[in-house]
Amino acid sequence: MDFLTILGLIAGTLTTLSFLPQVIKTWQSKSAKDFSFGMLITFSLGIFLWLVYGIGKNELPIILPNFVTLVLNSLIILIKFKYR
Amino acid sequence: MDFLTILGLIAGTLTTLSFLPQVIKTWQSKSAKDFSFGMLITFSLGIFLWLVYGIGKNELPIILPNFVTLVLNSLIILIKFKYR
Repeated sequence: MDFLTILGLIAGTLTTLSFLPQVIKTWQSKSAKDFSFGMLITFSLGIFLWLVYGIGKNELPIILPNFVTLVLNSLIILIKFKYR
Repeated sequence: MDFLTILGLIAGTLTTLSFLPQVIKTWQSKSAKDFSFGMLITFSLGIFLWLVYGIGKNELPIILPNFVTLVLNSLIILIKFKYR
């Protein structure tokens, strides 16, 4: 495994797991007022398309992070909806 | 240009531009309390590594979106710092 592949795996892990502390904070505070719906919806749609792209290319390093990111972002959207 | 390449470009554009409405909302409200510092820092670090990855692979479709996302995310971090 070359340096750039490792770099890509670390980058994907960071951008994916970064949403975990956000979901925890949002769940605890029950507040997502500062989040823009526009951002959440557009970002999630983009992540969904990356997921379809990864499935189309049959590349797990693209499928897995985007699936996890989609789940975590959907949780933030749900909390924002529920505690408007 | 095949279907999956177009899909990837659309996905990258959506995930990048999604931060624009967020920066506008955060700038107008001067409030980013609901954002987790952990998420912002980890996400930005991951995006920075994707940028280095894209430069290493010399792939503009990876460099450009991640550069724009890094700039937009840095603005959110700055606003969060300034209006704690």
